[in-house]
Amino acid sequence: MTFINQWLRADIKDIKAYHVPSSKNMLKMDAMESPFGIPEDLKQDFLDCIAQAQVNRYPDSNAEELHTTIRSLMDIPNDLGVLLGNGSDELIQLLAMACNSGDIVMSFEPSFVMYEMVAKFTQLNYQGIKLNDKFEIDLENTLKAITSNKPKLIFIAYPNNPTGNSFDYEAIKEIIKSTDSLVVLDEAYYAYSDKSFLAEIVNFSNLVVLRTISKIGFAGLRLGLLVGSQETIEQLNKLRLPYNINILTQASANFLLKEKERIANNAKIIMNERSRLFDELSLIPELAVYPSQTNFLLIKADNAQSLCGSLKSNGVLVKGFVVDSELENFIRISVSESKENNILLKHIKEYYG
Amino acid sequence: MTFINQWLRADIKDIKAYHVPSSKNMLKMDAMESPFGIPEDLKQDFLDCIAQAQVNRYPDSNAEELHTTIRSLMDIPNDLGVLLGNGSDELIQLLAMACNSGDIVMSFEPSFVMYEMVAKFTQLNYQGIKLNDKFEIDLENTLKAITSNKPKLIFIAYPNNPTGNSFDYEAIKEIIKSTDSLVVLDEAYYAYSDKSFLAEIVNFSNLVVLRTISKIGFAGLRLGLLVGSQETIEQLNKLRLPYNINILTQASANFLLKEKERIANNAKIIMNERSRLFDELSLIPELAVYPSQTNFLLIKADNAQSLCGSLKSNGVLVKGFVVDSELENFIRISVSESKENNILLKHIKEYYG
Repeated sequence: MTFINQWLRADIKDIKAYHVPSSKNMLKMDAMESPFGIPEDLKQDFLDCIAQAQVNRYPDSNAEELHTTIRSLMDIPNDLGVLLGNGSDELIQLLAMACNSGDIVMSFEPSFVMYEMVAKFTQLNYQGIKLNDKFEIDLENTLKAITSNKPKLIFIAYPNNPTGNSFDYEAIKEIIKSTDSLVVLDEAYYAYSDKSFLAEIVNFSNLVVLRTISKIGFAGLRLGLLVGSQETIEQLNKLRLPYNINILTQASANFLLKEKERIANNAKIIMNERSRLFDELSLIPELAVYPSQTNFLLIKADNAQSLCGSLKSNGVLVKGFVVDSELENFIRISVSESKENNILLKHIKEYYG
Repeated sequence: MTFINQWLRADIKDIKAYHVPSSKNMLKMDAMESPFGIPEDLKQDFLDCIAQAQVNRYPDSNAEELHTTIRSLMDIPNDLGVLLGNGSDELIQLLAMACNSGDIVMSFEPSFVMYEMVAKFTQLNYQGIKLNDKFEIDLENTLKAITSNKPKLIFIAYPNNPTGNSFDYEAIKEIIKSTDSLVVLDEAYYAYSDKSFLAEIVNFSNLVVLRTISKIGFAGLRLGLLVGSQETIEQLNKLRLPYNINILTQASANFLLKEKERIANNAKIIMNERSRLFDELSLIPELAVYPSQTNFLLIKADNAQSLCGSLKSNGVLVKGFVVDSELENFIRISVSESKENNILLKHIKEYYG
């Protein structure tokens, strides 16, 4: 037996490392990325701004400029606190670290896999509450589970990934009211959604909102943020590693996120394409397309696994799900620009002949 | 009582947030940064390389190119594994997360404060073993503490911060041999030191080596690495958040760390300046300068607190220590370029008249 095998917690040994499929030269429609890179007319200014960054010096520990920019981009009022992380992943982990080992973390299923993964890392007990067959919250069931299990932390992806829908707003409010748990509304897809819980933070002291810039054009920068009352953020900030946001992330995000109108416009383009894709795919009888408040569509598909493979062999990467899982007959596609969406449409139509 | 005050673990509430002093327009000689920025002749190529990065796409989860570059820079053999983190801070936290809550983390005192801080975050019990009055390991005492307390994790900064010396090599080997603990040799200052434990990893299955690029010119990039046997790294890698190293860190570090010769040469310049500063400062009777294997000098100084304040008011930031702490009569200065070192020397000489 190797040293590490006797040293390491058994529950970690059992974890399988997160697998990212190779995507070289593929049309990437699997990871909810934005298709829009840095626009040509901004590139020189962007590089000028990078050139100013003193990479030999530690970054601003408080990332003050970036805070100002991101507050402005997302209309976060000054009376709320903001905590920045390397992607929302780091913030999910920070929240989990704030709990006591053995505490219960609750979420819905299917939802974002990282809630369960991070709970495992941090020795918390993860409990997934099944969504109903319309991927909606079963409120009665959920309230019962909360009462009997007393979770410390509840993650609600709003809108939800991988299902694409936003759960009932009032049901979520009931959940927040019913519990002493910290309720984390994960609004990764806020830019593609009608509603947000940001304005509810002042009404519920146990509510925080998690966001990311990954879905609005900046997945490569790995920047997430947690918004909550100032007292809440001030306390959680103690768990942040002092220089967690590096100097190039600060410089680049500070520059790129100032393009508020352009970012909003790109989101509009994607939402229009989402409508079009929804309509066109809904005409294919072998598919059932689910309504989406995100930049992706969940689709129930005849022979989903084989469809995935066929698309892949045609150079199009979409997300398939594990055989024998609840979603084995589904695929999830990220909405892209019209040209790329047309390629996808063509291949799907060809597949079903 | 606010929500967060009743929700949060009491031990976190008691933590004071890490304080970083303002350094605007100051000569920074407090944070062990390298004074060397990106050289002018590389700037355009650096920016061209940044321009290639697709910020709208997720980064390479495995950071393959960067792995190759960093292995080459640090001569890490292929039969060892490497894990990358956002600064060594993230890797210290990952190692702590791998333990069971309540496990004991051991280190020496005084040493790098983050070992204790992260142990607190992760509900581990931190135990600091006092160094002797020459800031050396008291081996007998240490072995006794290991036998009776059975630490899960032992951090040894080699060379040590803030004292600047490298502990006795054979004593460290005795420690590694004596224990089932994972022993982490933190070689943040490897570039300024004669010796390393990298080549010992093959001899001791419970040894891993932590490094960072912060002290060799790239503090702003926040990139650290953990080197260990392939089995050890493969297991610990399960705890890494999948996209932890962002695309700009990957692109920039991959470019900048290829300058192996230049990095080595910059380290040489600093080591020469370290000798010169050591000699010049040793001539001042109010100071006792300690030998250093790092890019900083620890100095016992008459009226250390007042000296610090005087330097600050002259625009020079050096590290002072908390009053009533063991090091209250010391200052720590980062070695910089000759011009900056001369400014420091001038002010210190003036202070003591």
